[in-house]
Amino acid sequence: MELSLSKRIQRLKTSPVRKLVPYGEAALNKGIKIHHLNIGQPDIETPRVFFDAINSYEGKVLKYEHSAGIKELILKIQRYYERLNMNYSKDDILITNGGSEALQFILTALFDEGDEVLIGEPYYANYNSFFDVLNIKRNAICTYAEDGYHFTSLEDMEKKITPKTKAIMFSNPSNPTGVVLRKEELDNIIYLAKKYNLYIISDEVYREFVYGENKAISLGTFKEIENRVIIIDSISKRFSACGARIGCVISKNKEFMNAIFRQCQARLSVPTLEMVGASALYDLPENYLEESKVLYEKRRDTIFNELSNMEGVITREPEGAFYAFVKLPIEDGEDFSIWLLSEFSIDSETVMFAPGEGFYATPGLGKNEVRMCYALDEKDIKKSMNILREGLKQYRSLRGF
Amino acid sequence: MELSLSKRIQRLKTSPVRKLVPYGEAALNKGIKIHHLNIGQPDIETPRVFFDAINSYEGKVLKYEHSAGIKELILKIQRYYERLNMNYSKDDILITNGGSEALQFILTALFDEGDEVLIGEPYYANYNSFFDVLNIKRNAICTYAEDGYHFTSLEDMEKKITPKTKAIMFSNPSNPTGVVLRKEELDNIIYLAKKYNLYIISDEVYREFVYGENKAISLGTFKEIENRVIIIDSISKRFSACGARIGCVISKNKEFMNAIFRQCQARLSVPTLEMVGASALYDLPENYLEESKVLYEKRRDTIFNELSNMEGVITREPEGAFYAFVKLPIEDGEDFSIWLLSEFSIDSETVMFAPGEGFYATPGLGKNEVRMCYALDEKDIKKSMNILREGLKQYRSLRGF
Repeated sequence: MELSLSKRIQRLKTSPVRKLVPYGEAALNKGIKIHHLNIGQPDIETPRVFFDAINSYEGKVLKYEHSAGIKELILKIQRYYERLNMNYSKDDILITNGGSEALQFILTALFDEGDEVLIGEPYYANYNSFFDVLNIKRNAICTYAEDGYHFTSLEDMEKKITPKTKAIMFSNPSNPTGVVLRKEELDNIIYLAKKYNLYIISDEVYREFVYGENKAISLGTFKEIENRVIIIDSISKRFSACGARIGCVISKNKEFMNAIFRQCQARLSVPTLEMVGASALYDLPENYLEESKVLYEKRRDTIFNELSNMEGVITREPEGAFYAFVKLPIEDGEDFSIWLLSEFSIDSETVMFAPGEGFYATPGLGKNEVRMCYALDEKDIKKSMNILREGLKQYRSLRGF
Repeated sequence: MELSLSKRIQRLKTSPVRKLVPYGEAALNKGIKIHHLNIGQPDIETPRVFFDAINSYEGKVLKYEHSAGIKELILKIQRYYERLNMNYSKDDILITNGGSEALQFILTALFDEGDEVLIGEPYYANYNSFFDVLNIKRNAICTYAEDGYHFTSLEDMEKKITPKTKAIMFSNPSNPTGVVLRKEELDNIIYLAKKYNLYIISDEVYREFVYGENKAISLGTFKEIENRVIIIDSISKRFSACGARIGCVISKNKEFMNAIFRQCQARLSVPTLEMVGASALYDLPENYLEESKVLYEKRRDTIFNELSNMEGVITREPEGAFYAFVKLPIEDGEDFSIWLLSEFSIDSETVMFAPGEGFYATPGLGKNEVRMCYALDEKDIKKSMNILREGLKQYRSLRGF
């Protein structure tokens, strides 16, 4: 008799981004240098204050800390939000193991099996892991490269809502599209949330990285719907500290926050030292974030400029975060990405992208798209874009386009 | 219209141990010193090598590490198991955010809603959080103070198995009872696992803390059922590093481990620095663990000696871990615990226990029992037992026993 696994785990597939890993490893083994535009890993150094605070930790016994997180960190996050004109009490903030655990707790608290989430596609591929394990159906609102992946209309959003829809969810600024939602889009979201009694889950981890005239408006600034709003936040991108795994859930809905807290209790606590380091990050001078933003904005300009001048490539200027989502003049972004890793290089260098299909809920969409993360230095961005340009030419003629 | 929460989260109740927290806080505010026998928080200092390794970390960017955990830590755990005569490959070990995440991933991989777990009661109360969210039913095999909480018979175990039973689960040495399972008990478990095609989930985080003639036999040493065996491990108790939140899942079942790995990918990675610190802990000289054991054993002797001499108290000598589960000559361990916190003290000191009811699945059981953690120094154990003795006398006469 065979030992079996649960249906819930059978729904959870290997991440589509992971599929390329063996091809990347093979390229490395051939001595090829890979420019990693495939993952959202910032290259900026984690501020020293993070490590310094940990090195100064004086506790002798590394104890379970409070399940909600250490007071100091919660207080710092509270003040950070005050500077953004949002007033949260300390009970409105719960520290989690990264934004990932925040998301897992939120979805567990709101959705039963078969319930539905309203979400624009493309969206962050990793959300799927949690949707799948929890058996949450995606009502996906399609957005298009030609519109810069903004929502097309209120009607298109509204017609995806059913009686099983529990929440509308998005990241803003967006991973993977770089979209920053406009005031009208947020007004539509709020209108729908009120009309259909939905929660709004707003993943705002890229909040500071917004360029040009664009403005990231936090859902936390809309007082009349504060009971519906849930914010996911994290230090990973803001302070270039992905490996710390410190995130949080923020909401003024007491009953909901109690549901999150009970899950915090179940896993006892978040690592002590990483919370100590995270607390110190929130003491950085305000220009720290401004400087990161200026740096990413230059890179955004560089990658967009390069992409705009490539024949057949469709993209709009990314407005925030550090991703460009791009439609390529090919049929299959995954095949192209594998080809770039296994059969193409310039001066023994190649590039790795995240194939677009994994960011869509609707089967078949996104096949000719890829996500590019531009959190690497300008020289490497330029080299990568050159490899892309030449690669596209060769690949297209090889595949007979 | 009210915003609602999921059914799964409504099943998750506030931890029964937490119910006493406000009474503890009130006692503190009155200037009462509380001896915390209620939580499994070791008092031994976390070895300096943990902090030293973190302080020597030279990375500049705190990146996402591999979802499986850093290679160095996995290798160290592999070698630690080799010293215990268990051979695991590096793919048989996945690092998790504490034993809690290990458990959550394991249960998610094995159980669908309504599936059943075979478990001896009393068992670690916190398991319930995960059972409840995932809607896993407990088929509880009752064990008794008079038998030192050992399993009573194969028949008693077997009759609790149904076609929905997916796994048998236990902690060995046991939190909360201090039981160390005997060879015959393990043989029965293995017999049943084979006969009914069950997984065996063995929580072995207290492995080193076994006293006198007792021996903790790891489920990992039974080669013929290696495909069924899943071990939960953690550095929390072994190295007195609960706040590091580093645990792992260990199994030779490839399909199962792939199911765990996909969950590891979903949450991206475990905190980097805590893994660096944990790696250093596994380099401690072998006598480190022996010394901890000797210390806990003395305390075990002390608390058992005190309890044995208390009238009406029923307990057997704890065999391992650092808990005594005790039947008291009262009706309600929770009421008694609250009374100790709010109305009783000796020289402005009192004790806090974990009421026994929360450790049982069967309603009504464990009401006159409490769990005591003896991971505190002998002087405090003696004081605590004196407070208990005097408290019992007063409480019994007050309540008319």
